[in-house]
Amino acid sequence: MPKQVDHRGRREAIARALWRVVEQRGVTHLTMRVVAQEAGISLGQLQHYFASRTAMLSFAMDFASEQTSRRVKEGLKKLGDRPHPRDVLRLTLVEMLPLHADARATSRMSAAYVLEALHDETVHEQARRGLVQGRALVEQLVRHAIADGHIAPDRDPATETNLLLTLTGLTPLIELNVISPQDALTAIDLYLDRLFTGRDRSA
Amino acid sequence: MPKQVDHRGRREAIARALWRVVEQRGVTHLTMRVVAQEAGISLGQLQHYFASRTAMLSFAMDFASEQTSRRVKEGLKKLGDRPHPRDVLRLTLVEMLPLHADARATSRMSAAYVLEALHDETVHEQARRGLVQGRALVEQLVRHAIADGHIAPDRDPATETNLLLTLTGLTPLIELNVISPQDALTAIDLYLDRLFTGRDRSA
Repeated sequence: MPKQVDHRGRREAIARALWRVVEQRGVTHLTMRVVAQEAGISLGQLQHYFASRTAMLSFAMDFASEQTSRRVKEGLKKLGDRPHPRDVLRLTLVEMLPLHADARATSRMSAAYVLEALHDETVHEQARRGLVQGRALVEQLVRHAIADGHIAPDRDPATETNLLLTLTGLTPLIELNVISPQDALTAIDLYLDRLFTGRDRSA
Repeated sequence: MPKQVDHRGRREAIARALWRVVEQRGVTHLTMRVVAQEAGISLGQLQHYFASRTAMLSFAMDFASEQTSRRVKEGLKKLGDRPHPRDVLRLTLVEMLPLHADARATSRMSAAYVLEALHDETVHEQARRGLVQGRALVEQLVRHAIADGHIAPDRDPATETNLLLTLTGLTPLIELNVISPQDALTAIDLYLDRLFTGRDRSA
């Protein structure tokens, strides 16, 4: 189905144009007109692919999540057949931080999306679903690591998952150059060491 | 100086109108025209108080930080003369989360501000300075707590501070109803228990 493929390809090109607008100019400039300009197509052509700004945003956010998953999967391949759950979690968390160009684009997209979600029910539902699914994957990892003896059995999987996800809270500190990328990685490694040994590595 | 006071009062009323726009309609609607409407004044009157959108945003962000500090100070009074550093940190972190109307307004304001900072040098510098100062206050608390024996002496104050600040990463989970306010408080309490005892409470 070459036509189908083309359609998908064009939508992805538009999504990338939308990311560039978010990354380089900010969410306040995110209108269909600006995205059409950035993608080098007319507003009418853009409207052929996306009926509304929300539909366009939805697709761009889904595509950003797919790209993050793809980067994590590629990283996992390098970890071999049976990667340690600590390495899987580290890779996942690091790919969610704005530490390289692609991750920065998806991270900014995702921050803009959460703000947008507060004022649009459709976006809220989609953003919530995405976050619930991502959270469930992390919780599953934590539960397996507990079952396999990598994490102490008295740890509560739900709360540990919530605490792991808060590590994305390093984002504003990195974006505003308050801490260095290396500081962020040091914090994540220290946190994971404690989680996986049940105590402070230095203790 | 009643005239001075009036001027400050009017600027604060405008800042509150700006917060309402950010909280209720989102940062994409944040123009001087919309803020003037929300504040019930003309665009010309608004421009008398703020020469630009950036100047208005700057003031509104400073005012939001002041309001958060004021709430923390009020909370501290209730903790008595020599509050435990764990309680001081808990209060500070909780007031940064969107758990009640005022904190939600300042939290959303601050998220919008970080996004804005990525595309405006003046805003970036101000946001960075604010975050550096806030971080320094938390690090000072951590250092004192180590000196006073409340936190184990082998903890690294800088990394512990960065990890404490990541707890504001609970914000999107709360805003999108992925976890409840109680889940957020449970995570914070568990985290602080570990920091202040040097090990897992349940271990």
